[in-house]
This record gives sequence, structure tokens and C-alpha cells, in this order.
Amino acid sequence: MAEIDFNSDLGESFGIYRLGDDAAVLPHISSANIACGLHAGDPQTIAATVRAAVARGVAVGAHPGFADLQGFGRRAMTLSAGEIYNLTVYQVGAVQAFARAAGSHLAHVKPHGALYNMAARDDGMARALAEAVRDVDPALVFFGLAGSALVRAAREAGLAVAEEVFADRSYQADGSLTPRGQPGAMITDVGTAVAQVLRMVRDGVVRSQQGTDVPVRADTLCIHGDQPGAAGFARDIRAALEAEGITVRAPRTTPFR
Amino acid sequence: MAEIDFNSDLGESFGIYRLGDDAAVLPHISSANIACGLHAGDPQTIAATVRAAVARGVAVGAHPGFADLQGFGRRAMTLSAGEIYNLTVYQVGAVQAFARAAGSHLAHVKPHGALYNMAARDDGMARALAEAVRDVDPALVFFGLAGSALVRAAREAGLAVAEEVFADRSYQADGSLTPRGQPGAMITDVGTAVAQVLRMVRDGVVRSQQGTDVPVRADTLCIHGDQPGAAGFARDIRAALEAEGITVRAPRTTPFR
Amino acid sequence: MAEIDFNSDLGESFGIYRLGDDAAVLPHISSANIACGLHAGDPQTIAATVRAAVARGVAVGAHPGFADLQGFGRRAMTLSAGEIYNLTVYQVGAVQAFARAAGSHLAHVKPHGALYNMAARDDGMARALAEAVRDVDPALVFFGLAGSALVRAAREAGLAVAEEVFADRSYQADGSLTPRGQPGAMITDVGTAVAQVLRMVRDGVVRSQQGTDVPVRADTLCIHGDQPGAAGFARDIRAALEAEGITVRAPRTTPFR
Amino acid sequence: MAEIDFNSDLGESFGIYRLGDDAAVLPHISSANIACGLHAGDPQTIAATVRAAVARGVAVGAHPGFADLQGFGRRAMTLSAGEIYNLTVYQVGAVQAFARAAGSHLAHVKPHGALYNMAARDDGMARALAEAVRDVDPALVFFGLAGSALVRAAREAGLAVAEEVFADRSYQADGSLTPRGQPGAMITDVGTAVAQVLRMVRDGVVRSQQGTDVPVRADTLCIHGDQPGAAGFARDIRAALEAEGITVRAPRTTPFR
Repeated sequence: MAEIDFNSDLGESFGIYRLGDDAAVLPHISSANIACGLHAGDPQTIAATVRAAVARGVAVGAHPGFADLQGFGRRAMTLSAGEIYNLTVYQVGAVQAFARAAGSHLAHVKPHGALYNMAARDDGMARALAEAVRDVDPALVFFGLAGSALVRAAREAGLAVAEEVFADRSYQADGSLTPRGQPGAMITDVGTAVAQVLRMVRDGVVRSQQGTDVPVRADTLCIHGDQPGAAGFARDIRAALEAEGITVRAPRTTPFR
Repeated sequence: MAEIDFNSDLGESFGIYRLGDDAAVLPHISSANIACGLHAGDPQTIAATVRAAVARGVAVGAHPGFADLQGFGRRAMTLSAGEIYNLTVYQVGAVQAFARAAGSHLAHVKPHGALYNMAARDDGMARALAEAVRDVDPALVFFGLAGSALVRAAREAGLAVAEEVFADRSYQADGSLTPRGQPGAMITDVGTAVAQVLRMVRDGVVRSQQGTDVPVRADTLCIHGDQPGAAGFARDIRAALEAEGITVRAPRTTPFR
Repeated sequence: MAEIDFNSDLGESFGIYRLGDDAAVLPHISSANIACGLHAGDPQTIAATVRAAVARGVAVGAHPGFADLQGFGRRAMTLSAGEIYNLTVYQVGAVQAFARAAGSHLAHVKPHGALYNMAARDDGMARALAEAVRDVDPALVFFGLAGSALVRAAREAGLAVAEEVFADRSYQADGSLTPRGQPGAMITDVGTAVAQVLRMVRDGVVRSQQGTDVPVRADTLCIHGDQPGAAGFARDIRAALEAEGITVRAPRTTPFR
Repeated sequence: MAEIDFNSDLGESFGIYRLGDDAAVLPHISSANIACGLHAGDPQTIAATVRAAVARGVAVGAHPGFADLQGFGRRAMTLSAGEIYNLTVYQVGAVQAFARAAGSHLAHVKPHGALYNMAARDDGMARALAEAVRDVDPALVFFGLAGSALVRAAREAGLAVAEEVFADRSYQADGSLTPRGQPGAMITDVGTAVAQVLRMVRDGVVRSQQGTDVPVRADTLCIHGDQPGAAGFARDIRAALEAEGITVRAPRTTPFR
């Protein structure tokens, strides 16, 4: 019984500012990564997003990032391991409280933006993130780039892990994503995207641009919500996977340990 | 067996900035109200303060305020009830996560500054605060000005309540504090302060400036930590109360319900 | 030779967040009020907005507000006169530097949101605002609600003043705007709006909802840019006024003193 | 007629938080670098600091840094050249407005913390900083680490430059400062410090830890204000230099061009 999680970054509005079309994306996903108020989001937005996710039966996750609202958490910052640990505890706790206040619970954590990208390649940062998540709640599932320092650190911390893959990005022979801007980095054809996901889910491999098959574990698929047509792309991918017998659902803790 | 809680506002440093002498105050109190990062405090400061309180056996509380770091949460802001609710959930959750990460738990919530003062007189604000606390964790004890809208709302929300009194402030015939700046507003003599607290704890009354006895419930005594000599004042008050057979300890949920 | 200024609030985006359609509004206005980074706007946005205004020959103004990004400067805050003075100096200086860096100069200042509304009724706040503007640059034109404390304080401070009126709002017999939400508060018919502006410009009066003519000075007309159809409304009003021989242009300092 | 400027970083308090002893340092310096509100400082603090400097006849400068209050501008951030340019225009303009409102003028700009250190080694960052300063006001003097990318970029931008040296730090053979924490990095003996400054001012060289003489231009001497005894150290250095016939005064534009 093959299955995969669909996750998307939601709750990225702030104050009067709207970002993303959460309502259009929510019906197609199983896990929502909710911005925690430091790189995006604010208490009003978190509350509304958590409620909407709970109402849809979508798992509620925290999406912590650098405290850089102006840069949307996408600018690299140099923080100590202790600073990253505390930054993570703070943000995870804030969203967890909204989940409880909505009669639900926090299910997972996925780092955002520059924090995600830097920690995917930096064992110290990844460890600080993973230990913060575990110390807040060891039942949380940790989402990180498949095969990266993030998932290694989370396993070492004893957390359930969901390795994250992409339907709309091509891969390199070393398992990394083809950098944006390079030819063929983005996959826009739904059929190609579905085929890539199917191989990742069923066979545990992805065909790299170099033509080699690279092992990859596909626990959760990132669905971008902030581009035109994103919701339709998500719907089509989901329909195609389900037609192939793949169940889309949020990670249950046990199988991912 | 008479008892009372000693509470103090801690963790009000921010980044490079130091405020208050937490280390000097901690030995004398039973409950720490920890700033949550919006009017004061930051993730590093919260983490260190929570750890210090836990190490001392002092109960860990959240001290949420308006999101106004520049005004230290002391400037009035006009927020909707929904905004106050969400602002409270956010801050309580953040500190609660640090308490758990430190192997402890969050015990209570006391609003800060302008939020405390405004809500003490405003049923709608008080209700938003109390319901937020209850929805995050119904086992939390709510600290509010004795006899105010805060404690009424918290009881209506079903929360355990600790009514807060002051040793170093005189009272008016209507139970309010004599405004700072008026003659006799501040009590600086330890003996007078102890006598006032003893009557509040034992007899449930306070002698007003007008000479009348005003009923007051004294569950928790606010110990200011940011003035010169504050730690010594706290120590002296505590010693005098204990000499009179009053136990100083953090509220247990049951007796305050 | 009758004339009036058309002003609009621009540069209200922040970081990744877009707000308003500045490009659509710019061709129709003569003065741009640019958010200064505390309630909206950021250095990138200010720079781009100033450059776009300068390229169009639109006068560059600063639009200072409360330091409340989450509330978009629309939530009342209680500040001392000194705090308002300094808040204004800070924001006016920041935008003025961008105007100079773009080879232009700062022409005017219009307060934003709750700061505008509160100071329109509060002589002390209005004076703090006006004196801050004068102390930064006495050649700046001060924009404020026609007939309000704002324009009185600015005149007393020796500033040139542009009294602000509205085409799309109805007026009360005391000269105030009909509060939003009341019947007839908003004027959506272009013909009615043009007729109201023509009477204000030519005759110095506006017909109130009570049927009386109220004296009003119409130096500058506020054009909202953040509603659907706003740019078209601005274009139609401008065309109709110009057809009637009214020149639309930014205030020159001398006639407004 | 040998001369040198004494500069110190002031105005680093924020809201309720006090940092540094500006009043003790001001009598001994000729140039004040004033924090601009993003890494430290706020409108109230800037206003008070500018007034105090003007009253003492100390030149008023802007001290822009990264927008990272929690990290005090000391954490590296990755910004584009455009972001650095606009960040600088914003902060310089804000402080310049306070200088004008105080009846004075802005005299110089010195970058702060991580922005200073990164740009001292990065031509692109240095150019963005220098061009921003020039575009706001070409008469401003640019302060940067002697011999660094900062002073090269400022000269290329056509700005007057004050090369900055240190009395309390030892130098390496390549002209860099001995990193803090290495043996002999800090000079605590006033006599040694004075001798180092005298050689830099009179002979244009500094003796490195390796024993070689390194050419260095000493236009302005950094006086730290945030350490115990800092004011006394500044006073002693100044007295010793003046006894040797060295005049301490703020840069005049012409000699530094």
C-alpha cells in the first residue's frame, strides 16, 4: 500500500498583506506548514490558517524561519547553534498553542527558506533544529530535504522523519535539486512530474539529469502554493497518483521512524 | 495553614540589552512571569530565564504583552478582542514550549503592562485573555489584579485564578491602588508592607488610605525586580511572612479554583 | 485659475508583500504620499516608489505612521508628544534621503492612518507632527484633513498647508466625513463626485448630508489607490475636472502659506 | 600641525534599555556615530543623542547597521548590493533629519558591526555603502577601516574619507587587526596605546606583532564607549596626544578629500 504526504507552506500572509491562495491549495494537501510570525505570518493569520487546516482534516505543522520579515526568511543569517535551537523552540511553541486552541495538535515541523537550505547542508544547524523540535515534543514529525543533513540529524535526535521530495524540480546525479535557472530545473508538465513522483514512491529512485537513477526516499511531496496555477497542478498530481493507487495522507508517526 | 505566592516579572532583557537583576530576585520568589518576546525578551533570554527558574524550583509563567518593544508594552494600543486572544495564544505557546524543552511545564499566565492595566478594567479584553489561556491549556493558573475584571473573566472561563496584591502600594476605599505620584502611594517601610500583607492573607482585608477596611483576596504578591534594593525588599518581606507562619509557594491548581 | 492637487498613498508594499497598484495610480496624481517603513514600506519599496514618482513628475511626499506594521498603522496607540515628534522626524528624514538620492527633493508630508485621524482631533498631537515637519525642513507642505487640528497646527508652525478633501465621501453639517458604514457615506458615482469637488474648488463649500452648505478649503484631493477600479475612478475625476478648467498639480509652496 | 579625530559609537540604547555611558564618553570625543534605529537606537534615543552631541560641539554622524535588533547588527546577513544601498540611504536620512531638527547637520557616516566588517573585505558591499552616502549628501565624510575596501570605495565615489585606526588593538603585518582572543590582541596600557597612535599620526606607520612597520593612515581613532573604564581610557589617550601637540578634532571635509 504505497502512500505519500502532500505538504504546502501556508499562512504566509502578514497583517494587511495577503500572500498565497491558501483556500485553493488546502483541498489538495494533507499537511500544512504554517509560518510562525518571524519571517511571515502573525497571530491572526496563524489562528485562521490553523482553523482552516483543522476544518479540512489537514495536518497542522510549524514552519519556522529566520526572524527576517523583510527578507521573508530567504536571506542567509549567521546564527549560533544555540540561537537556532531557541528560535525553533519559540516558533514551534507558538503554532502548537494555536493547534491546541483549535482543538487539534501540532503534527510536524518543516524549516523554512534560508534556514531549511542552510541546515540541509550543515550538520550543526540541522542538529540544533532537530533537538529543538524533539525537546518541545518528541512526537512531532520532522520534514526535511530527502537525503540531507536535516533528515540525518532528525533521526539521530530520535524523531520520526518525513523525507521531502519535489514533483516540479529535476534532480542531479548527487541527489541534489538542479539549481533554479539552469536548463530543465523546473518540471512544468504534469505527466512528467507524476512519473517522477511515481518512481520515487514505488521504486525509491529518481532519474537524474545525467541519466542515472539516484536513490531517494519520498515520504512527503512539496506542493508550492504561491505560483499561478499551483492549485491546479496540485490537484492534477494528486488525481494522477491516486489513480495509480498511491494514497495521499499525512505521515503517521510509526512508519516514518 | 496560610500561604501566599511571590511572583516577579523576569526575562525582560532583549538581545544585547540587560534589564532587571533576575539572579538576585529568583531566590526569593515562587513564581516567575517571563516576558514572551513581543514587549521584551527574546528566544535566548526566555530559554535562559526558564532554565534558571526551573533550577530554582520557581514556577514558570508566561507574561504576554502588547507587541511594542519600543514602548516596553506600556503604551496603550487599541486591539480587537480577536487580536488580543491571538496575541495571547501566541505568546503563551512560545514560553510553554521553552518550559517543556527545559523538562518542566508552564504553570501560569500574567498579562503585562498596558495589557494588564487595560484588561483589569475592560471585561471584553479580560475575557479574550482568559479564553486564550484556557484554550491553550485549561490547567494554567491565571494571575490578575485582585478584584478586577481580569479575575472575574478568568473564573468565568473556568480557570484557576491567583488574585494579585501589592506589598509596596497603598489602596483606596474602592479597592484600587493609589495612583503613583499621589502622597502615600508607595510603601517603602518593610514593617508597614509586611503588616499590610499579613492582614490581606489572614483577614482578607486591606486598610485603605480612607481608613476603611476593604475586602481583598491575596493569592499572589507582586515583587518588583527592577528597582534598586528590590531583591533585599523581597527577602525581608518573605522572611517576615515566614516568621509569622505564612508559607510562600506557587499556587497549586486546586485551592485556587 | 482654479487648481487642485491629487494625492494618493503609495509605496505600501513590504518585503515580498505587494499592496496597491501604484503603477496604475501614478499617471493620474500629482502628489505621492510614500510609506516610511514603520507601518508599511521598506527601504527597497521606498526607493522604487520614489524613483517611479520622480520619473512621472509626481511630487514626492512622506507618509509617516505609527510603528505598527502588523496593524498597518491603523490601530490607535497612546504616544507622548515627544514620541510623536521624534517618530515623525525619523520617518520624514528617511524618505527625504531617498528623494535626494533620486535627484529630487521631498515636497510634502501627510500623516497616515490612526496617526492622521487621532491628530486631526487632538491639538497636541497635531502640534508635535507639525513642529517635527517644520524642524526637518520648513519648506515642506503639510497635508491634513480640511478644517482639522492638523491644518491649524501646521499653520501655527509656519508651514505651507494643503487642506485635504475627498471626492468619494459625503460630509456632515459640521464638516466631518460621514463615518464609513452609515448610509450614503461613500460616493461611487463619478458625476456626483466630480460635482462635489467642483463646488469645493470653485465655491469653497460642500453640501452636507443635512442639506446645508459647509465651508471647506480644497487644496488637495485624496485618491485612494487600493480599491478595485481606483485608478479608473481617479482618471475619470481628473478628466472631468480638467474639462471644467481645473488644473491638477502639486501644491506650490507660496499660494498655500 | 598634526591632528586626529576621536570617534565613538553612541545612541545604542533602545526603548527602556540603556547601553553604553554616552554622557561619560562625549566630553572626550570629536565625532559621534549614532545608531539609526535598525540594529540599535530608536527615535527618542537618536533625538537625545544628537542634541547631546550638538551641545558638546561633537560632530554628528550616522552609524547604519543591519536590521537585526536582536543580534545588535553583529550577525552576518546576506544582502544584495541594492539592499545595502537602500538600507544605508534609509538610516543616514533618518539621523540626518534629527541633526537638522537640532539646528545642526550630519557630518559623517560609519557603518556598524557586521556590515562594517563584511564591507571592509567586500568591494561590492563597500561600493553600495559609499554610493548611498554620496547620493544622500556628497559632503558627508565616510569613516572606514584604514586600508580597507571601505575607504577605497568611498574615495572612488568621490567622498571625503576618514581612515579609522585603533589605539587598543594590535596590528598584523598585512595591516589587519589581530583577531580578538589571540595573545596580544588588546592593548590595555595607556602608554603603549598612545605610542602606537603617535607613530600612526606622525609617521604613518604602525609596528605589527611581527615586528615590521606597516603603513597606515590615521584620520580618526575609534574610542570604545561600552567597556568599564572606557571613558577614562579615552580621556588619558586624548590628554597624552594633546601633550604631544596632536590636535583632536572632527574631520574637516577638505583635508580628507
